[in-house]
Amino acid sequence: LCLCWALGPAAASAPPNILLLLMDDMGWGDLGAFGEPSKETPNLDQMASEGMLFLDFYTANPLCSPSRAALLTGRLPVRNGFYTTNGHARNAYTPQDIVGGIPDSELLLPELLKKAGYVNKIIGKWHLGHRPQFHPLKHGFDEWFGSPNCHFGPFDNTALPNIPVYRDWEMIGRYYEDFKIDLKTGEANLTQIYLQEALDFISKQQTSQQPFFLYWAIDATHAPVYASKHFLGTSQRGLYGDAVQEIDDSVGKILKHLQKLGISENTFVFFTSDNGAALISAPKQGGSNGPFLCGKQTTFEGGMREPAIAWWPGHIPAGGVSHQLGNVMDLFSTSLSLAGLQPPGDRQIDGIDLLPAVLQGKLIDRPIFYYRGNEMMAVRVGLYKAHYWTWSNSWEEYSKGIDFCPGQNVSGVTTHTQEEHTTLPLLFHLGRDPGEKYPLSFASDEYQRAMERISAVVQQHKATMVPGEPQLNVCDRAVM
Amino acid sequence: LCLCWALGPAAASAPPNILLLLMDDMGWGDLGAFGEPSKETPNLDQMASEGMLFLDFYTANPLCSPSRAALLTGRLPVRNGFYTTNGHARNAYTPQDIVGGIPDSELLLPELLKKAGYVNKIIGKWHLGHRPQFHPLKHGFDEWFGSPNCHFGPFDNTALPNIPVYRDWEMIGRYYEDFKIDLKTGEANLTQIYLQEALDFISKQQTSQQPFFLYWAIDATHAPVYASKHFLGTSQRGLYGDAVQEIDDSVGKILKHLQKLGISENTFVFFTSDNGAALISAPKQGGSNGPFLCGKQTTFEGGMREPAIAWWPGHIPAGGVSHQLGNVMDLFSTSLSLAGLQPPGDRQIDGIDLLPAVLQGKLIDRPIFYYRGNEMMAVRVGLYKAHYWTWSNSWEEYSKGIDFCPGQNVSGVTTHTQEEHTTLPLLFHLGRDPGEKYPLSFASDEYQRAMERISAVVQQHKATMVPGEPQLNVCDRAVM
Repeated sequence: LCLCWALGPAAASAPPNILLLLMDDMGWGDLGAFGEPSKETPNLDQMASEGMLFLDFYTANPLCSPSRAALLTGRLPVRNGFYTTNGHARNAYTPQDIVGGIPDSELLLPELLKKAGYVNKIIGKWHLGHRPQFHPLKHGFDEWFGSPNCHFGPFDNTALPNIPVYRDWEMIGRYYEDFKIDLKTGEANLTQIYLQEALDFISKQQTSQQPFFLYWAIDATHAPVYASKHFLGTSQRGLYGDAVQEIDDSVGKILKHLQKLGISENTFVFFTSDNGAALISAPKQGGSNGPFLCGKQTTFEGGMREPAIAWWPGHIPAGGVSHQLGNVMDLFSTSLSLAGLQPPGDRQIDGIDLLPAVLQGKLIDRPIFYYRGNEMMAVRVGLYKAHYWTWSNSWEEYSKGIDFCPGQNVSGVTTHTQEEHTTLPLLFHLGRDPGEKYPLSFASDEYQRAMERISAVVQQHKATMVPGEPQLNVCDRAVM
Repeated sequence: LCLCWALGPAAASAPPNILLLLMDDMGWGDLGAFGEPSKETPNLDQMASEGMLFLDFYTANPLCSPSRAALLTGRLPVRNGFYTTNGHARNAYTPQDIVGGIPDSELLLPELLKKAGYVNKIIGKWHLGHRPQFHPLKHGFDEWFGSPNCHFGPFDNTALPNIPVYRDWEMIGRYYEDFKIDLKTGEANLTQIYLQEALDFISKQQTSQQPFFLYWAIDATHAPVYASKHFLGTSQRGLYGDAVQEIDDSVGKILKHLQKLGISENTFVFFTSDNGAALISAPKQGGSNGPFLCGKQTTFEGGMREPAIAWWPGHIPAGGVSHQLGNVMDLFSTSLSLAGLQPPGDRQIDGIDLLPAVLQGKLIDRPIFYYRGNEMMAVRVGLYKAHYWTWSNSWEEYSKGIDFCPGQNVSGVTTHTQEEHTTLPLLFHLGRDPGEKYPLSFASDEYQRAMERISAVVQQHKATMVPGEPQLNVCDRAVM
């Protein structure tokens, strides 16, 4: 009876629950639905067949912290401060000793959703700063179970402590100590713990009158990759695949839980990842970017195009496929729209409301900007992508064996020096050439026509760009 | 009434029709179901969701003629004569002036199917020889509409004639003359002609008491790529994608035709390709091998792993996915099994009967041999692939801009000299490393264990190998 009531007409107009499933370093090519040859993600593939597959969905930055800051603020990292000016096009994130974090001036999605009565929880990785003022419960979340950082370690606990794990305000333990990760076997039951947290939260909220926003930011596919004992050795793909299989199983359990509770038609679910697969860690600890060029840390497609699935039974047509250019920042604007809220009017918001694409199959014209640190490296308009700067990594790094594009080498494109193309950008047609291997001839009509359109977009973008105060410039061990 | 009767119990035990849809130079990554980012193959994707997707399906040779000879004989090209001894590991096919062709001593699938009462038709590319004794109607086919060769051209028609098109015994015209191909626009309505031939043949046979074998070997995705006017400019992928979309549409129409005639449950359909995408022709005239290394002409996965779908409503469970190691040669043995026939006992047959995999989801243990010309370059056993020889192409070719692995470069693997590894093969784990980028350490236990198993397989293979008379050694313009 209770369930029937919850599904009744009164509930239909209430804002839906919002569940964002954010993966860590999972690549576009890691899911069966996206062509991974082992096809070991039956639950995610089913989620796609029941929902909508986004094939042209991007992150706002090829690195973890800036990507997450962008998702939660709807703004490019260069605006919300999640970048560094210490070097040109330099990637930066939030290590343990980072001084900066998410500024109070930024409005985060959970802060805004509160106005519509949402209860907000983050499970997993926060990554927006370690100092007290950056705590997620100071930025709109009501509950937290997880960590401010990656599960790097183990550390010696004298100069460098192990990464802490929090329940709400309280530190309840540390990775490798209270939350075991066996680097030798790859065994850790963290995904199971994060799964149970999600199931419990959903169960608890189901009895409440308030909608929920759950941000499930697990990190099993970030090196050092781990999986529970039950999943170890189950994948054709090795340990990385074991982790993917455990996540796939967990997503399946979460969706089934929503269905069992009778709230699937009142819960908007979106699955994506924070950046491309970390090919530097492949094959044991890194995933796949399918047919795309390079990986994490780069502004090639492999670094920034993400697997993405929207699921909302009864609202999103089953088996849909969308070529809408999407971005993690859109999850901010789309969530506000779902909650019946307007985005803040006092600042530039880069995300757009994807509901017309999701619910009506519309295609909204919008560009994708590919930033690396302080620099706009590339822009996509329609099927064209123009590189204003190309760089994989430095010769110095490369000579030490750090390779963001293993086995790939496109002359003049995957450059180990920062190459400026601002006067004559390298242009690719991503339909004909998704792997960014064949730059268009500068002399062609096609180049001229496409660049006219792109130049106008870039000019407008740059003219109105007001960079935020860079938060990732200073590290200080005193922070720890 | 007629339809009801055809579906009745009497028909259930009769051998099914067999329809092989063989693509030309289409790559593993060209279908939406296999992760092509434009996802423009709704009919093939639906075929997969109604049938069984084969993820580990191979050709017997990375080049057209030997692959087709292997499919129709169930035997490796090195056995059936479709190779050359003019050079080591040299690829060879059947140009207009080839002297050789399919030997009379070879038993072709249609010859055998005749014994079970099948009517056999080939539509499209034959490719097993140009001289009269090699005519498909001398090798078991009852009907032919198509050409002995690729649609290369146009030629000058003095020294070199345009490629002929046949209906049965008769030459009815030539490509570029009677069967137009506009190289400038890419327009040709050949796929529509080949589609109509298939629909007509199926309609005609449906009223007969005899089962049919239709070998639909179209070639729109072989360079020079073409599509009908209706499909030109419709794909995100350019002309190559237009051709794929027309093929996808055609396959959809063929399957719907079977359903409309009420014979889909009595028709076994298999879709695959003759070799990997020709990356030398990409991006305008060549397809995608997804995450795999290199393409056509090579024995890396990109050259030999093929898209593959089995479809047989009421028999093959919908939405199945198989990791059975399969090969185009298995279509020979599987077709015989469907017809209730035994494979010939007087010769080595390399194909296996896939029905246990297709109908019961079984996994049959069998190796895959990767040949290039006269040389066994590599072998796959389970998830391990050992390269005994590596070669992309010669420095001489490469310096002329011929590149079988554009944008890819795996040190010591994509070699431009023929590198022998017979004493210490390069070993890859295709589950963890489908892109063949990370050879296993020779010193590892895993290497030792895997190579023990593989060495036994190779030893047995080589010990019993009796190469056939090479058919592709001699060209002579007198043949034309």
